[in-house]
Amino acid sequence: MIYFDNSATTKPYKEVLDSFITVSSEYFGNPSSLHSLGGQAEKLLNQARGQVAKLLKVKPAEIYFTSGGTESNNMAIKGAAFLNRNKGRHIITSSVEHASVLAVMEQLAGEGFDITYLPVDHEGRVSVHDVEKAIRKDTILVSIMQVNNEVGTIQPILEIGEMLKKYPTILFHVDSVQAIGKVPLSLYQHKVDFCSLSAHKFHGLKGTGVLFVREGARLAPLLSGGNQERKMRSGTENVAGFVALAKALRMTMGKSELGITNMKEIQSSLRKKLSELEGVKIHTPFEGAAPHIMNFSLEGIKSEVFIHALETDGVFVSTTSACSSKKKSPSKTLLAMGVPDDLADSSIRISLSFDNTQEEAVAAFSSIKRCVNQLRKVMK
Amino acid sequence: MIYFDNSATTKPYKEVLDSFITVSSEYFGNPSSLHSLGGQAEKLLNQARGQVAKLLKVKPAEIYFTSGGTESNNMAIKGAAFLNRNKGRHIITSSVEHASVLAVMEQLAGEGFDITYLPVDHEGRVSVHDVEKAIRKDTILVSIMQVNNEVGTIQPILEIGEMLKKYPTILFHVDSVQAIGKVPLSLYQHKVDFCSLSAHKFHGLKGTGVLFVREGARLAPLLSGGNQERKMRSGTENVAGFVALAKALRMTMGKSELGITNMKEIQSSLRKKLSELEGVKIHTPFEGAAPHIMNFSLEGIKSEVFIHALETDGVFVSTTSACSSKKKSPSKTLLAMGVPDDLADSSIRISLSFDNTQEEAVAAFSSIKRCVNQLRKVMK
Repeated sequence: MIYFDNSATTKPYKEVLDSFITVSSEYFGNPSSLHSLGGQAEKLLNQARGQVAKLLKVKPAEIYFTSGGTESNNMAIKGAAFLNRNKGRHIITSSVEHASVLAVMEQLAGEGFDITYLPVDHEGRVSVHDVEKAIRKDTILVSIMQVNNEVGTIQPILEIGEMLKKYPTILFHVDSVQAIGKVPLSLYQHKVDFCSLSAHKFHGLKGTGVLFVREGARLAPLLSGGNQERKMRSGTENVAGFVALAKALRMTMGKSELGITNMKEIQSSLRKKLSELEGVKIHTPFEGAAPHIMNFSLEGIKSEVFIHALETDGVFVSTTSACSSKKKSPSKTLLAMGVPDDLADSSIRISLSFDNTQEEAVAAFSSIKRCVNQLRKVMK
Repeated sequence: MIYFDNSATTKPYKEVLDSFITVSSEYFGNPSSLHSLGGQAEKLLNQARGQVAKLLKVKPAEIYFTSGGTESNNMAIKGAAFLNRNKGRHIITSSVEHASVLAVMEQLAGEGFDITYLPVDHEGRVSVHDVEKAIRKDTILVSIMQVNNEVGTIQPILEIGEMLKKYPTILFHVDSVQAIGKVPLSLYQHKVDFCSLSAHKFHGLKGTGVLFVREGARLAPLLSGGNQERKMRSGTENVAGFVALAKALRMTMGKSELGITNMKEIQSSLRKKLSELEGVKIHTPFEGAAPHIMNFSLEGIKSEVFIHALETDGVFVSTTSACSSKKKSPSKTLLAMGVPDDLADSSIRISLSFDNTQEEAVAAFSSIKRCVNQLRKVMK
C-alpha cells in the first residue's frame, strides 16, 4: 500500500497508540476527582499540556485541548464572535478556508454577523493588502488558514500578523491543521491570538485537537459545563487522547527537519515527472507551498474515476479535502484560484507523510502513468 | 484497590481498548475519503451506529456520535434553543441537573432565554405536576436528567414524557449519562426527543458520547464544518472511539440484568450497615433510586478529609460529582433537597460498577467504620 492521502488523515504512530493504551488502562481516573487516581490523571494531563506548550513555544496556560480541528475552529471563531459582538460584527476570512471555518462563517452570517470572504490569486494566496483593505471599524476577527488543505499554498500569516499590530482590537485566528510540523509558525511573533490543530493530521488520534489561545485573549465557551480546561472547554478530559496527542506532536516535531527535506525531494521529483505527462496541470505553486501537498489535474479524466483506478495498484490519493469528497462539486479552492470547472473536476491531491519514500513516489508515478494511459485509451 | 467512584468515570473494558487499537491501527482511513480505506472506516462507523441504535431500540439515523456527555447536552439544548427561538424562549429544567446542563442554561439566559429551574422534593425528585405548571405558551424545551448524578434519584421521565404528549411543540431532552444500562429507558415510549450518553460512564473511552435525536426533531449544529453526522456534528469521526463505544454499550447491556441485581444487593447491605453507624444520614432515597449510587453524610466530618482517609485503605469514593469536586461548595442537589449546609459539606458518594463485589463492599465498610472512628477521635 502506498498511502498518499495524509492530509485526509494519517496513520497513528505505534508509540502514540501505546501511550493511549497505557493511560486508558492504568490511569483511568477522572482528572477532576479529588483522590489520587484523579490526581494521577490530572498530572498526566498537565504534563501533556506542558509538552505541547513547549513544542509550540508558548505557555501551558495557552493550550486548550479539544475534540479536534473542527471543534478548535468552531470554538475560536464562534467564541470570539459571540464574546465581541457588542464591539462589532464584521469578520474577515478567505474564500479558500476549510469547511469548518466557512460553515461557521455562514452560521454567523445567519446570526447577524457580516463576513468578508477575501479572494485569492491564481496560486491560492490571500494578499495582506486585501486583508487590510477589508478592515472596518467594526471588524473584530480575522481568520486565515496557514496552509491550504487542497493545494498546499502557504498564506502570509507573518505579514498579516505584522499588519494587524496596527489594529490591536482585532483578533487573529489561524487554522494550522495542515501546517503543523511541516511549515513553521511562531505564534507569538506572528501575533496569533488563536491557533487550531488536529492530532490525526500528525499521526495522533482522531477526536483530539488543540486550540492555542493567547494569554489575555478571551472566548465565549462553546461547550459549557463542569468548567474543565480553565472554564473554556467543559467535559471530562480525554486524558489518554491528549497524552497521545502530545507524544504525536513531539515525534512529529522531532522528525520535522529530515521529514520536510524528504517531502521536498519527493515533491520535486513527482512534480518533474508529472509535468512531463501530457495533459497535466499542476495547481500547487512551485514556491510558497507546504512540502506535503501536491494538487494537479489530468485533463479529461474525472478525479473520482482516477482515484479508483490508482487504488487498484494500492495507491491511495484523494480528489479534494476528505470532508468534501462526497459532495461531487469541484474544489472551492481551485475555483477561487480561477481554475476552470472541468479542470477542477479532474483534480487529484497527493499528500505525503514524513515516512513516505522516493521508492513509493516512483511506484506511484508508474501507476499514475499507467492509469492515465489506460483511462485515456478507454475514453477514446 | 476498591474503586467505588464509577459515576465519575469507569475503567474501560479490556475488549473496548482492544477494539480501539484494532480500528486505530488497521482501519485508520478518514470515513469521508472516497477510496477503500475510507470506505472501510465508514463501514465500521455505520456498524457501530447500527449496534448502538439496536441496543437503544431506535433507528441508526437517530444516533449521533459526539465527544461526550457535555457535548451531547450542549448540542441538544443549545441546538434546540437556537433553532426554535423564534417560536419561544422559555425552557424548563430542574435545579439538580448536571453542570453541563445548568451551565448551558445560564449561557442561554444571557442570550435572552428565560429558564425555569424546578425545585425537587426531599428525595431530589422533580414533580410532573411542577413541570406541567411551569409550561407557558413560549416554552420550547424541557430538559430533565434521568438519574441524578449526585444522589441517584430517578426522575419521572415516563410521566413527564406522557404529560408532554399534550404539548407537541415542546421538545424533551433527557440526560441519561448516569442511567444507561442501570435504569431502563424506552426512548420512543417515553416521548424523548433528545437523549445524551457518555461512553466513559459505561466502560467506554473518554472523549466519546452519543446524542439520540428523534427522527424529525431538528437542531442547530454546535460544530459546523464538513457536514459529518448528517450535517448535525461536523469533524472527522473518531471511528475507533465510536466502535469502542458500541462495544462498551453492548457489553454493558449484556451484563445489565445480573449487574443490576448485584448492585442492588451491595447497595442494600451497605445501606443497612451505614444506617447502623452513628451520625450517618443517607441521602439516596430507599425507593426510586439507581442501583449504583449511594450518597450519605457523616455528621461532623468534612467530605474531603474523609475521602483522603479512606484512600489510605485503597478505597476510592467521591464527595460529589467529579467536575464539582474542586469547587469546595456543597452539593447543589443536596441543598435543593433541603439538606442543611453542614451536612451537605460532609457528604460522600459511593458509585458502583457491575463488577464490584460484596467482598469489596464489606472491606469498604470496614474502612469507612475505621475512618469514622479515627477521625471522630482526632476531632474530640
